[in-house]
Amino acid sequence: MTRFGILGFGLHAVRRLMPGFARAHNCQVSALSRRDMAKARASAAEYKIPLAFDSASDLCRSPEVDAVLVTTPNACHLQDVLLAIDAGKPVLCEKPMGMNAAECRQMVEAGGKAGVLLGVAQVFRFEDSTARLRARVANGEIGRPIFARSEFSYPGRNHARAWLTSAALSGGGPVADVGVHCIDALKYILDDEVVRVSARGFSDQDSREVEAAAVLSLEFSHGTLGMVAVSTRAEYRTPLEIVGETGVLRADDGLNVERPISLQLRRGGNVVESELVSNQYAYARQVDMFADAVEGKAQFPVSGEAGWQNQEILDAAYHSMKSGRTEDVIQVAASKSR
Amino acid sequence: MTRFGILGFGLHAVRRLMPGFARAHNCQVSALSRRDMAKARASAAEYKIPLAFDSASDLCRSPEVDAVLVTTPNACHLQDVLLAIDAGKPVLCEKPMGMNAAECRQMVEAGGKAGVLLGVAQVFRFEDSTARLRARVANGEIGRPIFARSEFSYPGRNHARAWLTSAALSGGGPVADVGVHCIDALKYILDDEVVRVSARGFSDQDSREVEAAAVLSLEFSHGTLGMVAVSTRAEYRTPLEIVGETGVLRADDGLNVERPISLQLRRGGNVVESELVSNQYAYARQVDMFADAVEGKAQFPVSGEAGWQNQEILDAAYHSMKSGRTEDVIQVAASKSR
Repeated sequence: MTRFGILGFGLHAVRRLMPGFARAHNCQVSALSRRDMAKARASAAEYKIPLAFDSASDLCRSPEVDAVLVTTPNACHLQDVLLAIDAGKPVLCEKPMGMNAAECRQMVEAGGKAGVLLGVAQVFRFEDSTARLRARVANGEIGRPIFARSEFSYPGRNHARAWLTSAALSGGGPVADVGVHCIDALKYILDDEVVRVSARGFSDQDSREVEAAAVLSLEFSHGTLGMVAVSTRAEYRTPLEIVGETGVLRADDGLNVERPISLQLRRGGNVVESELVSNQYAYARQVDMFADAVEGKAQFPVSGEAGWQNQEILDAAYHSMKSGRTEDVIQVAASKSR
Repeated sequence: MTRFGILGFGLHAVRRLMPGFARAHNCQVSALSRRDMAKARASAAEYKIPLAFDSASDLCRSPEVDAVLVTTPNACHLQDVLLAIDAGKPVLCEKPMGMNAAECRQMVEAGGKAGVLLGVAQVFRFEDSTARLRARVANGEIGRPIFARSEFSYPGRNHARAWLTSAALSGGGPVADVGVHCIDALKYILDDEVVRVSARGFSDQDSREVEAAAVLSLEFSHGTLGMVAVSTRAEYRTPLEIVGETGVLRADDGLNVERPISLQLRRGGNVVESELVSNQYAYARQVDMFADAVEGKAQFPVSGEAGWQNQEILDAAYHSMKSGRTEDVIQVAASKSR
């Protein structure tokens, strides 16, 4: 039974991580940290978590913590991950892994040097929807994939996670926040790597320093063309669609973790088959699989290198938004961790 | 009753134009031309068209022809349109209008100088689906449009229109052939202009000199981000989707002219309303409206300038595919013809 300490116990921990831990088999939460000690104690009491800290470093050094889950604002990931590594604690870092690829490299190199397990919480790798789409594409059900589309929008005006619109804390808007999910999901489903990206976005008054919406064109190494659209200016929606030479696989709300998803196989414009799947166990599986890796029973599917590779794509996308160019994506050696 | 002469009576005329004329009220076909006189006579006999020509210029000069419909391969549009203008005949040119914007400019200037009506056959301007989507977006049903997507694929390997894969005859692959429909449809639905475009595509052995598939990112002047995907490597599909701040309008086969289309209004991931529309009269309306314009009863909705503007977008897209840059779209004065 792996005991996790959650660094930065905020809205994400409350809404997603704790329900995940409640369903997990192989791990539990033994500690949390918040910047304010009174709030840390209140959260610990509310969620029946034994230890409360206002210091990331104290949490990392606690003998009651076997693994650290970093869910602080993106700008804090680097220092928090390094603290955990310094303390010799396996560390699972929320996405996006850092503020830029250089930070991710630092984390990966520190973890490698210390021999400490480092993983990235790309939760959609643990979903039934992405797993089934991946299997069905690999099965040849739609022939060669021509287009792959993933969109993620949510209403982000005056969002409770206020740091999301501060470029200094978030590193970017919806491209970094949810675009990384879309990109990772398409990579996983196609079992392919992104080699080039171009991106266009817009900001408005409420998006402050970051983009309010963006579209990304992705080129995969095997030729599939990807489209990603993300925004904090529309209702919650997560459509996924893979268009192949002989058919189409589609899920209207393919990445959602709350309600059942209908995966449709379409041919000639008609739904010829549909399958209901649910992603309700994704967060539980993510921490159970990390716990398995901590205990040496399995490999965690999203290595630090894989998180770093995703960050290279984000960096290229933001670079493209500024340069107006299609940007090559740097390929991180050994990033494939499937 | 306007009498049309069809220049280049090929597969498109047989499959789309003649069924359109059969439903038209205000016009008929009095002449056709094909390169081969025997074939021209055979087609004329088969479709009960009085006059057959093997010379575009003879057709244009015929006193039995009131208006010319140019549906030759794209590389012939310039000379054919100029022949019609020289003969003083109103001319409706198939899309894409030409091989490049310079050709379109020549056509528009010649038409203007001669005082001859010039229109472009962007048939989707005459569809119920695009008209309803435009009206509903204008109505504010989905709030401000954030994303607009249009896709058009069809199986194009060994297509009967063999000239489509010859760059010298077509000017381009599916971007020129059907991408121009997607672009024009989104412009029409959003009532907006494209100011920047970036495009990525790929070719394969069967696509010969042109692209087999491409994705385009469009930036509209009012901030909406557009996504267009076109290919000759998937089944026939024409999805249309407009994602607004408060809802989504979607049609799975939004541009098809053959079967009924369900326009869905979606909120919170659910279909809250749907409407059945049909585009079966689009080709008939297109020629009836051109005939009305010939007879001075109305303005034709797609001017030469509007076709030229679309070609500027195609040119920028092809330029972008080569340059790897997002390209600004040259704005043609007075192209708005709605």
